[in-house]
Amino acid sequence: MDKRELILNAMSELIAQDKGACASVSDIAKQAGIGKGSIYYYFKSKEEIFDAVVDRYYSDVISKCGKIVENNKIDAITKLKFILQGYRADTKSPPIDTYLHQQSNAAIHQKSLAKILLSLSPIIAKIIVQGVAENVFVCGYPTETSEIVLSVFSFLLDPGIFAWTDEQITNKLTALAIMLERALSAPKDSFSFLYQNYSL
Amino acid sequence: MDKRELILNAMSELIAQDKGACASVSDIAKQAGIGKGSIYYYFKSKEEIFDAVVDRYYSDVISKCGKIVENNKIDAITKLKFILQGYRADTKSPPIDTYLHQQSNAAIHQKSLAKILLSLSPIIAKIIVQGVAENVFVCGYPTETSEIVLSVFSFLLDPGIFAWTDEQITNKLTALAIMLERALSAPKDSFSFLYQNYSL
Repeated sequence: MDKRELILNAMSELIAQDKGACASVSDIAKQAGIGKGSIYYYFKSKEEIFDAVVDRYYSDVISKCGKIVENNKIDAITKLKFILQGYRADTKSPPIDTYLHQQSNAAIHQKSLAKILLSLSPIIAKIIVQGVAENVFVCGYPTETSEIVLSVFSFLLDPGIFAWTDEQITNKLTALAIMLERALSAPKDSFSFLYQNYSL
Repeated sequence: MDKRELILNAMSELIAQDKGACASVSDIAKQAGIGKGSIYYYFKSKEEIFDAVVDRYYSDVISKCGKIVENNKIDAITKLKFILQGYRADTKSPPIDTYLHQQSNAAIHQKSLAKILLSLSPIIAKIIVQGVAENVFVCGYPTETSEIVLSVFSFLLDPGIFAWTDEQITNKLTALAIMLERALSAPKDSFSFLYQNYSL
């Protein structure tokens, strides 16, 4: 494994042990089993390391979604189900989330929300276009519609920004499902997967 | 004017002069024409002062919207037009925005986005309920629908988070107008005000 990966693994491990906030660059080096000097070859600061950890984490989520969209045996509604349910399950990684939601990490948190929206919206847009071709959706603005849906997931449902109860989240997902069904002129209950047995 | 207001005005003035980032608590006291000790009676730090400036700023926007909703001579669609157009015009206060969008202010920025959503969504929900009573809307989830609309305004259209071109913004507002029209089963072009002559 290359040193950069070792450093990211070490930082992730410290975050998982709830030592993210108090860890110094020396602690990260020690955990990675490399010299402190080596770290500065790859990263300028602890913040940069954390930024890269978050980036790697979301890249994994995005690449998983990218694979779903390329599968030409799955219909559009099922793809959206896999991606949107998967996104909610995947982006609930308690240790990273807890650390990301600390005030001092607000800038990195905000950047990560923007990144996930910009990376996932073209993927979801492709699926909407597929749904139009399959005659299950009517949509003239697939990219923008995807961005609106992802604003709900990235911002409104982010537990670091709002403290909703489970019931409130279910209501928001129900409202989104109804809005999407009508907005895309989709078959009835196409998006009921959003609020049925959602995983927190 | 009470001292607290003087301090907030002084901070706003320094931000307008592009001196927000480098100003010390002493500079703020000097600008306010009061002693540094007085500031600490009201605020713990410069961050707390800025937080209060942002809070006062958004409270003004919210109270303006609150007055519109209470006016019983205006129909629901016109109210939404006033509020959503006004919100976009009002929340473009370049000096505060520029300062708010600096990385070091990300935590206050995020808090302000959440505040505006939580304060405005009950107001917009009331208007949707009025629209249902006027038989122009069909909507079972007025609060949640309002939150989804405001997620677009507060997050997706925030120039501190994304750097969209004017054309991209117009497309997003067009997509939102179409989504809302269909989602609320509203009369055709009810929300065309969103993308026609919007003010950046």
